[in-house]
Amino acid sequence: MLNPAVAQYIQTHHEQMLAELAELIRFESLADAKDPDGCTPCAEWIAGRLGSLGMTADVVPAAGPPVVLGEWHVDDALPTLLCYAHYDVQPADPMEEWLSPPFEASVRDGRIYARGVTDDKGQLFAHMAAVEAWVEAVGQPPCNIKVCFEGEEEVGSPNMEAFLAEHRDRLAADALIITDEGFYDLTTPAVRYALRGLCYFEVTFTGPPVDLHSGLAGGVVRNPANALAAMIGKLHDENGRVQIPGFYDHVAPVSDAERAEWQAIGDVDSHLKQQFRVDVLTGGEAGYSALERLGARPTCDCNGIVGGFTGSGSKTVLPASATAKVSMRLVSEQDPQTVINGFKAFVAAHTPAGIRSEVTVAAAARPVMLDREQPAMDAARLAFRDVFDTEPVFMRMSASIPITELFQRVCGLDAVVTGFAQPDAALHSPNENLRLEQLWAGIEFLAAFYQHLAETDDSA
Amino acid sequence: MLNPAVAQYIQTHHEQMLAELAELIRFESLADAKDPDGCTPCAEWIAGRLGSLGMTADVVPAAGPPVVLGEWHVDDALPTLLCYAHYDVQPADPMEEWLSPPFEASVRDGRIYARGVTDDKGQLFAHMAAVEAWVEAVGQPPCNIKVCFEGEEEVGSPNMEAFLAEHRDRLAADALIITDEGFYDLTTPAVRYALRGLCYFEVTFTGPPVDLHSGLAGGVVRNPANALAAMIGKLHDENGRVQIPGFYDHVAPVSDAERAEWQAIGDVDSHLKQQFRVDVLTGGEAGYSALERLGARPTCDCNGIVGGFTGSGSKTVLPASATAKVSMRLVSEQDPQTVINGFKAFVAAHTPAGIRSEVTVAAAARPVMLDREQPAMDAARLAFRDVFDTEPVFMRMSASIPITELFQRVCGLDAVVTGFAQPDAALHSPNENLRLEQLWAGIEFLAAFYQHLAETDDSA
Repeated sequence: MLNPAVAQYIQTHHEQMLAELAELIRFESLADAKDPDGCTPCAEWIAGRLGSLGMTADVVPAAGPPVVLGEWHVDDALPTLLCYAHYDVQPADPMEEWLSPPFEASVRDGRIYARGVTDDKGQLFAHMAAVEAWVEAVGQPPCNIKVCFEGEEEVGSPNMEAFLAEHRDRLAADALIITDEGFYDLTTPAVRYALRGLCYFEVTFTGPPVDLHSGLAGGVVRNPANALAAMIGKLHDENGRVQIPGFYDHVAPVSDAERAEWQAIGDVDSHLKQQFRVDVLTGGEAGYSALERLGARPTCDCNGIVGGFTGSGSKTVLPASATAKVSMRLVSEQDPQTVINGFKAFVAAHTPAGIRSEVTVAAAARPVMLDREQPAMDAARLAFRDVFDTEPVFMRMSASIPITELFQRVCGLDAVVTGFAQPDAALHSPNENLRLEQLWAGIEFLAAFYQHLAETDDSA
Repeated sequence: MLNPAVAQYIQTHHEQMLAELAELIRFESLADAKDPDGCTPCAEWIAGRLGSLGMTADVVPAAGPPVVLGEWHVDDALPTLLCYAHYDVQPADPMEEWLSPPFEASVRDGRIYARGVTDDKGQLFAHMAAVEAWVEAVGQPPCNIKVCFEGEEEVGSPNMEAFLAEHRDRLAADALIITDEGFYDLTTPAVRYALRGLCYFEVTFTGPPVDLHSGLAGGVVRNPANALAAMIGKLHDENGRVQIPGFYDHVAPVSDAERAEWQAIGDVDSHLKQQFRVDVLTGGEAGYSALERLGARPTCDCNGIVGGFTGSGSKTVLPASATAKVSMRLVSEQDPQTVINGFKAFVAAHTPAGIRSEVTVAAAARPVMLDREQPAMDAARLAFRDVFDTEPVFMRMSASIPITELFQRVCGLDAVVTGFAQPDAALHSPNENLRLEQLWAGIEFLAAFYQHLAETDDSA
C-alpha cells in the first residue's frame, strides 16, 4: 500500500500538477542534430524544478542535447534508484491533423492533448510529482533517488553511449526504472523485458543533375524515383521476409514457455486491430503470430519517401533524385553494424547503371534482453497491484529505447521498462494524448514503486 | 528569301520585342484545374496585343482555361494558316534552384531566363512579332492567319477536344503550324512527324487511418509506402520492359528506311548525353537504340512520389498513406484507354491485403503520325533554309503535345510540329532559358514560313 499521506498529497494537488505539466509541454524540445541547443531551455526548466523540490540537479552538457542529472541521497543504508525518462519529443507534423496546437496542453473529455504529453514528458513529470509528494507529505523520498532525463531519445540517442561512460560513477545505482512505456490495454499494466533495436537510414538515389522533361528524356535517362522504388520493393519477398543479406543470422527462436506466456494474454489480434484501427494484420512475416512478429521478429519499414513533383497537377518531370527513410527493428542478437553493412550492400546491389546511391546512417541501437529476476521487477509488480488493483503482464516490446541497452552494457544496470502510456495515446501521431486519471494513477504508481523498492531491494 | 523589309523590321525592333515578351512572362499562367480563371489575365493580355496588330481576337471561354482565337483574313485566294502555341507554363518549383525569379525575364550572357520563355510563351510571342513585322513593313500578312493559343497544354489539354469540336468552323484552315518544339542540336532545326501520347496517373496507397509508430506497429500493420514502392518497382522488368498487361500490343516496329534516316543524323548518343548531362543512357528498354527508345517505344516513369516523414531527422513512422505520380509515353497505335485499363488492373493486382489503392487519371492523349507530304512541310524546310542556312532534320518526337492528335482527329488538320527551342533550354526545369539570337531568328523563321506557305500551298 502506498503511504496514505503521499497518496493524499497527490490526490489533492491535481490542479497544480496539471499546470506544471502544461509548462513543460510548451517547450518545442525536438532533438534536431542541426540545433542541439534548441533543447536547452527545456532542460533548464526541468533542473530548476528538481532543485525546487530539494534535489541537487544539473543541466549536464553532452555532444547532443544536454542531459538533466539530479539526486536526493537519503541514507547509505537505502537502495538507490535511477529514474530515466526523456524530455525530447517527436516532430508534430502533419500539423494540419491536430485539433489543438501541439505545444499547448489542451484538456478535453478527460484527456490532455499535446505532443509529448505521454511520450515522454508526462512520464518524466510523474517522477517529479512523485518525489514532490514524498517530500511534502513525509519530508523525503523512501529510497535514494537519482534522475537521468535525456534529450535525444526520439532520434536514437546517438550521443548517450559516450555520456553514460563519462558519467558512470554519478549514475551508479541499485536499480533502474525507464518510464517510457505503457499499458498492454486500457486497464492492464505491462513490464517489458526485451526491446527491439533500431537501424535508421536515409537513402538518396541521384540520376540527372536536374529534373528533366519526362517526355524528352523518358526512355534514355534512368529515373531515380523508379530505381529507388524498385530497391525498396525488393527489401521484402512475397512472404514479408527481409532480403538484406545476413539479416536473420542472429535472430533466436522463441521458447515454447515464452510463447505459452503470451498466449495467456488473450485475443491479441483483436486488441492490436483495435489499437491501430486496421481491419487486418498483414504486416511482417508470414507464419508468425502478431505478438511474435512485434516482439521477437525483426522488421523493415519505409518511414518516408519523396522525389520529383508532388504538388497539385501533373508535371511531367523525370526527377533528378529521390530520397527515402528506411529503418529496421532488430531483435535477439542482431548487431546493428551487421545490418548496416548488409543494407549498404543491398542498396549498392540494387543501384542500376546511371544512378548514384548514398546511404546515411541516422540511428543504430542494439536489441536488449533484461533480467526478469531482479527485485525491482517485483517492486513494479507490487506497485501496479497497489494502484491499479491488477497484475502487470510481462512482455517483449516492439519499439526501441536505445538507452536501455546502453545502461545494461555501459553501466551494468538492467532496467525495469514500464510506464503508464495507454494504447490510444497516439504516440508519434497527431493528437497525442494522456488520460488525466492515468496521469494521477501513474504518479501514484511511481511513488509506490519507490516505496516497494526500498522494502524489497536486497542489494543495499 | 524572307521579304527584306520584313527582315529589317524584325532586326531593328529587338528592344521593343524583348520588353513585350517580358510582359507576357510576368503572368504566372499555370494551368491548375482548381483555378481555371488564374490564366485569364494572361489570355486577355494576348488578345489585346493581337487586337493592336489589327487582328480580330477573342478570349474564348472553355471548360478549362480560356483559349485565345484570332484572325487576319487577307484574301480568299490565299491559303489560311492556323498558328498554335500555348500560354500556360509548367510550375516553377523547385524554386530554390532558380538563379533569378522565374516570372521575371532576366537577360544574362545572351539568354533570357524565365519560366515559359521557350515553352511556350517565347514561341507564342514569335507569331505576334512575325505578324507585326509583316503588318508594319508590308501592310498585311502574306497569307490568311488564324491563331489558337491554348492555356492548358502543360496539363494534357483535357478540355481541348470539346473546344476544337465546338469551334471547328472558326478554326478551319489549309495548314497548321504548332510551334512548341525545337532544334535537334544548337544549329540544326527539326520538324517532327510523330509525337508520343501520354497517360498520367496519380496513385495513392492507404493503410492505417493515421501515421503510426513504426516500432509499435511495424511487423503487424502493412506499410503503404513499402507497398507503393513495390508496385512501382514491378512496373519494369530487369530489361526495362513495362509490365502493364497489354502495354505493347499496338506498338508498331520501325521500318528499315526510317531507321536509316535516323542513323544519318549522326552520333545521337553523345548528343543526348550532352543534352541531359548524364554519363550513360540506361533508361528505357534494352535492345533498342536511344532514338528508337525516345521516339518509337513507349515508356513509363514515376514523376513524383511522397509519403510518410520527409523532413530533417529520423521520425519513426509507419505512414498512413503514400502517393505517386506515374505517367506513360505512348507510340504508334497505343490507345490511352487500353493503357488506363491495364494500369488500373496492374495496380489492383499489386495492392496487398491491408492496403486500399486509388488511381486517378490526370491526363490521356493519343500518339499521332502526321502527313509528311503536305506543302506546309516544304514551306517549313524552305523557311529554315532561309534563316538558318541549313536543312532541318525530320524526326519523331519523344514528348507529347496532345493537341496535335486532336487537330488531326477533330479538325482534319495535320500539323507541322516545329519551333526554335534549343536543346539547352532547360524546359520544365529551373532556369529555363532562350538565347536572344534564337528568338530573333525564330521570329524571322515564322515570317518566312508564312511567306513560303503563301507561295507553295496548292490548296488555296
